[in-house]
Amino acid sequence: MMISTLPRFVDTQIDMTHGAGGKASRRLVEGLIVPRLGGAGPLADAACVDVDGTAVAITTDTFVVRPLRFPGGSIGELAVNGTINDLAVGGAVPLALVCSLVIEAGTPTAVLDRELEAMAGAAARAGVAIVGGDTKVVEHGKADGLYITTTGIGRVDPRARLSPGAVRPGDRVLVSGQLGDHGITVLLARGDIDLESDLRSDTRSVRPFAAALIETCGADLRWMRDPTRGGVATTLNELARDCGLAVVLAEEALPVRDEVRGACELLGLDPLHIANEGQLVAIVAPGLASAALERLRALPGGDAAADVGEVQPAPARTVLAVAAYGGTRVVDMLVGDPLPRIC
Amino acid sequence: MMISTLPRFVDTQIDMTHGAGGKASRRLVEGLIVPRLGGAGPLADAACVDVDGTAVAITTDTFVVRPLRFPGGSIGELAVNGTINDLAVGGAVPLALVCSLVIEAGTPTAVLDRELEAMAGAAARAGVAIVGGDTKVVEHGKADGLYITTTGIGRVDPRARLSPGAVRPGDRVLVSGQLGDHGITVLLARGDIDLESDLRSDTRSVRPFAAALIETCGADLRWMRDPTRGGVATTLNELARDCGLAVVLAEEALPVRDEVRGACELLGLDPLHIANEGQLVAIVAPGLASAALERLRALPGGDAAADVGEVQPAPARTVLAVAAYGGTRVVDMLVGDPLPRIC
Repeated sequence: MMISTLPRFVDTQIDMTHGAGGKASRRLVEGLIVPRLGGAGPLADAACVDVDGTAVAITTDTFVVRPLRFPGGSIGELAVNGTINDLAVGGAVPLALVCSLVIEAGTPTAVLDRELEAMAGAAARAGVAIVGGDTKVVEHGKADGLYITTTGIGRVDPRARLSPGAVRPGDRVLVSGQLGDHGITVLLARGDIDLESDLRSDTRSVRPFAAALIETCGADLRWMRDPTRGGVATTLNELARDCGLAVVLAEEALPVRDEVRGACELLGLDPLHIANEGQLVAIVAPGLASAALERLRALPGGDAAADVGEVQPAPARTVLAVAAYGGTRVVDMLVGDPLPRIC
Repeated sequence: MMISTLPRFVDTQIDMTHGAGGKASRRLVEGLIVPRLGGAGPLADAACVDVDGTAVAITTDTFVVRPLRFPGGSIGELAVNGTINDLAVGGAVPLALVCSLVIEAGTPTAVLDRELEAMAGAAARAGVAIVGGDTKVVEHGKADGLYITTTGIGRVDPRARLSPGAVRPGDRVLVSGQLGDHGITVLLARGDIDLESDLRSDTRSVRPFAAALIETCGADLRWMRDPTRGGVATTLNELARDCGLAVVLAEEALPVRDEVRGACELLGLDPLHIANEGQLVAIVAPGLASAALERLRALPGGDAAADVGEVQPAPARTVLAVAAYGGTRVVDMLVGDPLPRIC
């Protein structure tokens, strides 16, 4: 007898928490969408399709961030970088992007044009072409100006052997930089809290970091993800669940700016739950962790990369954060939706 | 000296006509989006990417149809069939689909579930897997329940040599069935006009028709398209422009149901401007036209397939409709947006 471990989706209507990337999103995707669409197989962020013997990764994301522009970036840049990042952490070299725009009637052409320019810039910086697309227009009052869906395909690097099943006790947890910048920047841009800050979104391609890790570690690179909605906490909880092990973080090792910490304290949020749009989390075999970290730190924008913890055998399926002079806390998945429409 | 033939986009804001698939859409796409995103290259509905020597077609579409369900189909079915059809008319065998959902907060789970089921059904009927996806939730009042973006990749059939440049005077114009059913069905479902009718959307995969044409005609199949937004008129005007020839339709040969004709007369619309979601238009060398038509008619749902006209050398870049006992009229691209949010 098979006992399904999938959460059942029993909510009678969809609410904002189902889009937040945390527990409710997981219930919706795994309890309703996957059983309906995915059949027996998984319905992952980036899937792999065999094309005449070549492993091709494919990934799609819709961006509905509010406001359209914020310090350090905008929806157009986010849409291109986000899809490139999903390919990159899947171990794939991007081959092409397509994009689909839903534009609200009444949107000034200048606003649209600025986002097209942002998309083109991000694609050019990553060396990927946008090869096709679609455009729809919806009535004024719908779509908040612009929603953008980007889909990317990429060739999976045969050296990458990424899977939660490859993760072993003793493996190290690396992050590519400061955590939580994007989420808090968007929150501040909305004026929801009154706080002076120079914070900027971290939106960027993480492909250089992913490529360096694959090159340095080969099959000793176990797993990568970009911790967007739901933050590092949610991403690592999914890993802990999927590999059946514990991820133990060193509280003091987590690179978080004072401004992000301050805003989080004010709002009662955990920086580990805040979305990032230009970071990756990687699990690396212990013997290669310091070489890998050195490579990350040597890359432009990689100076804040850090070794933030270890995979341990127990407590199974759990993420812990241990403070140097203090206790140990359980780091859960994001619950609720403290930061709607963050990407 | 190169003189650009691209229309300049001078409108200061986006309105519903820019999403209607006609002249205004063309100006937006070719005058603003392509120059920004596509660089020198084209930004087509289905683009072709080389993957280690295999030609892979990729296409993306967002569906924003209102209402979500209508006689004969729903947004979920439309989203899957629409992307399969873009691949099919590009001469490609679908390999995989991904989908991204934008759900309005407050949408009943039952409504979402019904559309997931519709998507799964359409994908299963076409023999294609939905391998990945994304889900976003936006506030109540946005997104009219559900927007769906589907992206598909497919292997291009090497026998297909489809291009407007392959079209020659004397080539025949074939259509796979009744025209205008989808657009008028959605219009009636909105209650915009009061008309009794058994009309149903034609949403379906056109892949069997496309495959039969490739098999029957090989390189003598010149060009295919699915005439969705903007209808057959807009699709053929784009062809006429791109091949520099005339497309001359025989008015009486066009398969249009009485109900569609009636609704169009009432509304002052041309059935050739009405969206189809389960038809293709093909240009075939004259010697193979009757064999091709026979193959189409022998397929399930192909009994209304018809030879509707001919490619002629002049008037260049023009579509004409000739009535047996009457005059000749110029069939222009769709202007304005008589049928918003039709797909």
